[in-house]
Amino acid sequence: MEKTLKELAEYLGGSLDGDGSAVIRGVAALKDAQPGELSFISNPKYLKELKNTRATAIVATADVVVEGMAVIRVNNPYLSFARAVALFAPAKRPPQGIMEGARVSPDARVGKDVTVYPGAFVESGAEIGDSVTLYPGVYVGEGSVIGEGSLIYPNVVIREGVRIGKRVIIHGGTVIGADGFGYATEGGVHHKIPQIGGVLIEDDVEIGANATVDRGALGDTVIRRGSKIDNLVMIAHNVVVGEGSIIVAQAGVSGSTELGKYVVLAGQVGVVGHLKVGDGVQVGAKSGVSRDLDAGQAYSGIPAIPHKNWLRVQAVLPKLPELRRMVGELTKRLDKLEKEKE
Amino acid sequence: MEKTLKELAEYLGGSLDGDGSAVIRGVAALKDAQPGELSFISNPKYLKELKNTRATAIVATADVVVEGMAVIRVNNPYLSFARAVALFAPAKRPPQGIMEGARVSPDARVGKDVTVYPGAFVESGAEIGDSVTLYPGVYVGEGSVIGEGSLIYPNVVIREGVRIGKRVIIHGGTVIGADGFGYATEGGVHHKIPQIGGVLIEDDVEIGANATVDRGALGDTVIRRGSKIDNLVMIAHNVVVGEGSIIVAQAGVSGSTELGKYVVLAGQVGVVGHLKVGDGVQVGAKSGVSRDLDAGQAYSGIPAIPHKNWLRVQAVLPKLPELRRMVGELTKRLDKLEKEKE
Amino acid sequence: MEKTLKELAEYLGGSLDGDGSAVIRGVAALKDAQPGELSFISNPKYLKELKNTRATAIVATADVVVEGMAVIRVNNPYLSFARAVALFAPAKRPPQGIMEGARVSPDARVGKDVTVYPGAFVESGAEIGDSVTLYPGVYVGEGSVIGEGSLIYPNVVIREGVRIGKRVIIHGGTVIGADGFGYATEGGVHHKIPQIGGVLIEDDVEIGANATVDRGALGDTVIRRGSKIDNLVMIAHNVVVGEGSIIVAQAGVSGSTELGKYVVLAGQVGVVGHLKVGDGVQVGAKSGVSRDLDAGQAYSGIPAIPHKNWLRVQAVLPKLPELRRMVGELTKRLDKLEKEKE
Repeated sequence: MEKTLKELAEYLGGSLDGDGSAVIRGVAALKDAQPGELSFISNPKYLKELKNTRATAIVATADVVVEGMAVIRVNNPYLSFARAVALFAPAKRPPQGIMEGARVSPDARVGKDVTVYPGAFVESGAEIGDSVTLYPGVYVGEGSVIGEGSLIYPNVVIREGVRIGKRVIIHGGTVIGADGFGYATEGGVHHKIPQIGGVLIEDDVEIGANATVDRGALGDTVIRRGSKIDNLVMIAHNVVVGEGSIIVAQAGVSGSTELGKYVVLAGQVGVVGHLKVGDGVQVGAKSGVSRDLDAGQAYSGIPAIPHKNWLRVQAVLPKLPELRRMVGELTKRLDKLEKEKE
Repeated sequence: MEKTLKELAEYLGGSLDGDGSAVIRGVAALKDAQPGELSFISNPKYLKELKNTRATAIVATADVVVEGMAVIRVNNPYLSFARAVALFAPAKRPPQGIMEGARVSPDARVGKDVTVYPGAFVESGAEIGDSVTLYPGVYVGEGSVIGEGSLIYPNVVIREGVRIGKRVIIHGGTVIGADGFGYATEGGVHHKIPQIGGVLIEDDVEIGANATVDRGALGDTVIRRGSKIDNLVMIAHNVVVGEGSIIVAQAGVSGSTELGKYVVLAGQVGVVGHLKVGDGVQVGAKSGVSRDLDAGQAYSGIPAIPHKNWLRVQAVLPKLPELRRMVGELTKRLDKLEKEKE
Repeated sequence: MEKTLKELAEYLGGSLDGDGSAVIRGVAALKDAQPGELSFISNPKYLKELKNTRATAIVATADVVVEGMAVIRVNNPYLSFARAVALFAPAKRPPQGIMEGARVSPDARVGKDVTVYPGAFVESGAEIGDSVTLYPGVYVGEGSVIGEGSLIYPNVVIREGVRIGKRVIIHGGTVIGADGFGYATEGGVHHKIPQIGGVLIEDDVEIGANATVDRGALGDTVIRRGSKIDNLVMIAHNVVVGEGSIIVAQAGVSGSTELGKYVVLAGQVGVVGHLKVGDGVQVGAKSGVSRDLDAGQAYSGIPAIPHKNWLRVQAVLPKLPELRRMVGELTKRLDKLEKEKE
């Protein structure tokens, strides 16, 4: 794969500063790039790597000062570079059909142009859409549906009664539709509440590796269109994750909580059950959410409070020992003043 | 499946307010229920949904005021409803035996009425009890034992030397008996301590998806009867989880710690190693336990302190910046008073 | 397997107090040991178990007072005992070759003395070194390399373009090389950044169960020689884990962060992205690291500060309500003093 810089600039809709006839054969990070490769600058933290890079050209915004190399100027360098990466990424393998060693129930429905690897298992009544890929070790339970173009990596478990939309990506080892964690305790015995709901995952969702999305107790657990969920995240029964939300690694959302649209939960956040988190809420890493959160605001802390307040609290925390000492000092001085008055 | 309300009330041991001849065909949450369905109210948070539900009847305690629909009055609505759900849940598939494509070592012992799916693998010397189900991708190591009626979901790994009791449920992707995390460091090299203990999981335990229960270094890691463990929980080597304990998602218990009976660890709790946590202890979400905890008490915080104290600490935290300002103010006022005295 | 105490003391390079002709047939923890077994004492917390143990001999340092049983005196009892355990551990099974039901691409390269179990899957262009074991359900992607003597437990997923060194151990369910979590958002759509880097895992690394190590966006995610990573840990794209580092269960390291050599992250720690953590840094359990950390220091807290400071802060936290009360009291007393002056 080769492109001239002129061709690349046109493809990315950017304007070119430099020699349009230079040939690009690959993409790389600033510090790893070789001559003939394209790189990018998006995070100012890496500006200092600009002067040492061996890249032939970079993608950058108009304001970045660049010397000794060509630049494709764009508004969103991260996005434009992503498009360039896709251009140079290795071509996908053509569909392989249902391969020998795959086990697909005769009464499952399978679309065209699929790849079902050996060791994948599709239960009775399941529906596998066109152009779906099921890697080895994938389990698709009874009556579950996987929409067109979805990509299910090795050893993913999709239990019965799960509906997955189009162009969904689920990474290795993730479990969709395990029983929710519900018990009614009487006389020292935890009686299991049957979990008879399902899971609905809408189009264009991506879920990382070794995550878990439990089935509903009654009714569905829902991940709405375009949401992105990272590795080792826990989504409990009957949670609703709103459209376009982003949930970073090792975060967890407890049962029946509803996240609005475009919510961001940073890494290792926990949200207790039965809450409502408004549209556009952002929650800082490691925070613990224990009450409903208003739309459009940023929150942090355990328990989570408005992010600005949390920053102020965090600034005081390391000074607590000094604060206590000061209060002790003030007390002594006041004791003395009062005594002198007597 | 159909039941009259009279039949249902009798089955649940409740008393009926309303028309006993009404026919129930299913169960649902208040907000999703349709005519002909039974619902329930247990959490007061959902009382407001009572007036809009389309359910034909609900299960509730005697004190809940209900208008326009039948009520089955019981003492524990959550438990009674669970029993009704089980009644309407789809029938289990009859046992399928050792299916073609399952790999069971000729010197493993397999009981009657089992279902061993294609892609399951049972090593030499393992014992699979009557009525056990092993889904695709389950691995059972050498000499491991799975008791009668246990249900092992897809891609669960059970290493060698693991003993699992009766009616145990293990959800997809969970790993039982991986080596504990133990090294002796000398000269900059972390030498692995062989982990030659096993895991003992007693009857009626349920373990969620993608959890891990490590094998003991010497002696066993133990999960006692009736305990319930949620998704993505980590139980380290030689931990003992007491009878009837509940460990919520993403919590972790470090090596050799012993939890008493009926301990509850909420989500994302961490407990350090070599501790004793007393019977009936409850630890709040996200807490960090770093010392032994007395039986029967509730704890929260990092580090965990009595829950009541933690609530008071939490109330002050957001006011820390103001507290610091007040101390600064007091200091100035005192400086002034002292100066005036001179 | 039987050894006399004399033989054992020689093997461990220790000096023997007691009868060298006594026969040892196994190893066990102090509280479980039976006559004929060897035990050890390393953590002073277990000194009280010394007087009740039934062990025939123990491994201990010179300063431990022992009565009524033989002692092998060594400098590092934990390490010496580990060597004794290895001596008595069950022998490994001889190599089984590529077993029936394993699926190895004809254009993969496979060394000698391997064991590839049924249900393992090796893609085109992969290289499996001598004496490697791949358990059932292991997936090895296109062109990935696994070095000599490595041990890959059931249901591990190794995606394409991953290079794994020699004597590496990866426990069940772990996923190496899933796509990093990277999106460029424009117009409410999260566009996926293709993740075209790989993963490099050097020699003698061990990774626990259900962990995840993502592939780089560009360039590699790297785990350097001799590092040990526990269960359910998340290593994000382009992270570098330095040589000999230890990362305890459920910790997470965000994208592009570099850990130095011999860093220790305790359980449930989180580290944000694009940071540098110096050589030998130790981070306490549940801490949140949000800035670069200097080499050789210990840190704790959310956010992480020097560990000693954090201990002082932790001592004050439970006293916050009292501190606030004291400040209120001081204010009143000062109000009174000032009023009297008027």
